[in-house]
Amino acid sequence: MKIVVIGIGLIGGSLVRDLRGLPERPSVLGMDKNPDHLDQALSLGLIDAPAEPADLATADLVIVSIPVDHVVRELPGLLAKVGEETLVIDAGSTKAPICQAVSGHEKRRNFLACHPIAGTEFTGPDAAISGLFQGKVNIICEVEQTAFRIQERALELFRHLGMRIRYMSPEAHDRHIAYVSHLSHISSFMLGKTVIEKEQNERDIFDMAGSGFESTVRLAKSSPAMWTPIFEQNRENVLETLDEYIANLQEFSDQLRENRYEDLYRQMDNTNRIKDILKGIPQQKQE
Amino acid sequence: MKIVVIGIGLIGGSLVRDLRGLPERPSVLGMDKNPDHLDQALSLGLIDAPAEPADLATADLVIVSIPVDHVVRELPGLLAKVGEETLVIDAGSTKAPICQAVSGHEKRRNFLACHPIAGTEFTGPDAAISGLFQGKVNIICEVEQTAFRIQERALELFRHLGMRIRYMSPEAHDRHIAYVSHLSHISSFMLGKTVIEKEQNERDIFDMAGSGFESTVRLAKSSPAMWTPIFEQNRENVLETLDEYIANLQEFSDQLRENRYEDLYRQMDNTNRIKDILKGIPQQKQE
Repeated sequence: MKIVVIGIGLIGGSLVRDLRGLPERPSVLGMDKNPDHLDQALSLGLIDAPAEPADLATADLVIVSIPVDHVVRELPGLLAKVGEETLVIDAGSTKAPICQAVSGHEKRRNFLACHPIAGTEFTGPDAAISGLFQGKVNIICEVEQTAFRIQERALELFRHLGMRIRYMSPEAHDRHIAYVSHLSHISSFMLGKTVIEKEQNERDIFDMAGSGFESTVRLAKSSPAMWTPIFEQNRENVLETLDEYIANLQEFSDQLRENRYEDLYRQMDNTNRIKDILKGIPQQKQE
Repeated sequence: MKIVVIGIGLIGGSLVRDLRGLPERPSVLGMDKNPDHLDQALSLGLIDAPAEPADLATADLVIVSIPVDHVVRELPGLLAKVGEETLVIDAGSTKAPICQAVSGHEKRRNFLACHPIAGTEFTGPDAAISGLFQGKVNIICEVEQTAFRIQERALELFRHLGMRIRYMSPEAHDRHIAYVSHLSHISSFMLGKTVIEKEQNERDIFDMAGSGFESTVRLAKSSPAMWTPIFEQNRENVLETLDEYIANLQEFSDQLRENRYEDLYRQMDNTNRIKDILKGIPQQKQE
């Protein structure tokens, strides 16, 4: 089995880390615009060698794990170069623009649109970890556009990675993910910004910051190069979630300003229901 | 040594868990308005017996770990009943209203105003854990108002718990803590609320929610009974931080609406600096 991974960062690197454990050890070739990342991936043993464009035609699997603006720009050209039996997957956090970019493509049936819900706030090949996808959800969009035998091979790989599959339309994916992922990142980035702007003396921040602040602001460490194009591609949905979030914060602020403490209590009490919802996450993982 | 703990939840319970390990094993008596919590604290071995009001006069240490509205209401009466040598500490997340409540009190010099920056989103005696305070900061306010020999005994206890001490005025405490703790809780509560309101089908939430959402929304599990009075007591500071947070979110939203992606990128890139600030937290812990 021959794997070509395009973009060897946290996601691409973690995928090949686990895929190297397949019964028939695959050969893994890599491409990355950043020559340092390519060197690191080699010395970390994530890839066996750099990939040449010609390798796309003979690859069994091509993993496209690059920022979503690059996916939209480069996927059509990459897809044109792959072999008849090559499976191409992506891992982008937006699905409608990516599916649209290859809609009607002569090799559309070689591509499976994926979003593995897994990651950390870190980037680059040295952020790649084993078992990252174990028990996590992989959202597959427009599955009917992919050749059946190629779907089957993809599912086998995802089973090896320990992933749970959910099928969804690209539009539904982008709408829901705006709430449970994209909005969290904005809320965290703006929290970090607000605190940094205010606290000129950083010692005051980290001395008084507890684990609560640390967890709420964690996503503000994320890569702007990855997230700017995600917000651009999912602009309409993100703007809608942001409007609702700001309206809720404004309502909270108004209630506090007007000393309406029973209303504040009730809001927080209702939101405590998130406990049960979050409990669902690990339980589902053990399926 | 005789300890009376008033309010045996996460903080009170965790404090006595560790203080039981003092060389001369102290006797620990407890009070709690919730009879179930008192029973649990007994059966968990956190306390030896329920406390009587008369125990306040003979206690060496009284820990007041109840919601901040109860502290303000009950601390003056409790303080009036303690012995000449009793050390009284609180653990409230607001300091100005609490210090004001006992300002000029005949036993003011027996009280040390504290805020240990430690906790989890859980509540009750069964949430109490050992080592919770190890390496954490304890903010002490108006130290000059406490008798010197009583301060010394407090510092010895905090050393046993592994805490790092910082001294601050109640006003500075309340202003800074609004940013690094109170605002995080509101941002998290409102994120949870926004997502719950939108996602009628909860299965969609937990299936698509990754660790990013989980960490950002974690504080939305916190107790409204504890947090409503904190927001009330720190109303002015919290309103100011909230206004700034909303303004930053609104600016982000405007930039996205106007397709100003370079501005979005720059904001996130500047906020990435939070990495270095957060790195300070564990480093400081190892001092």
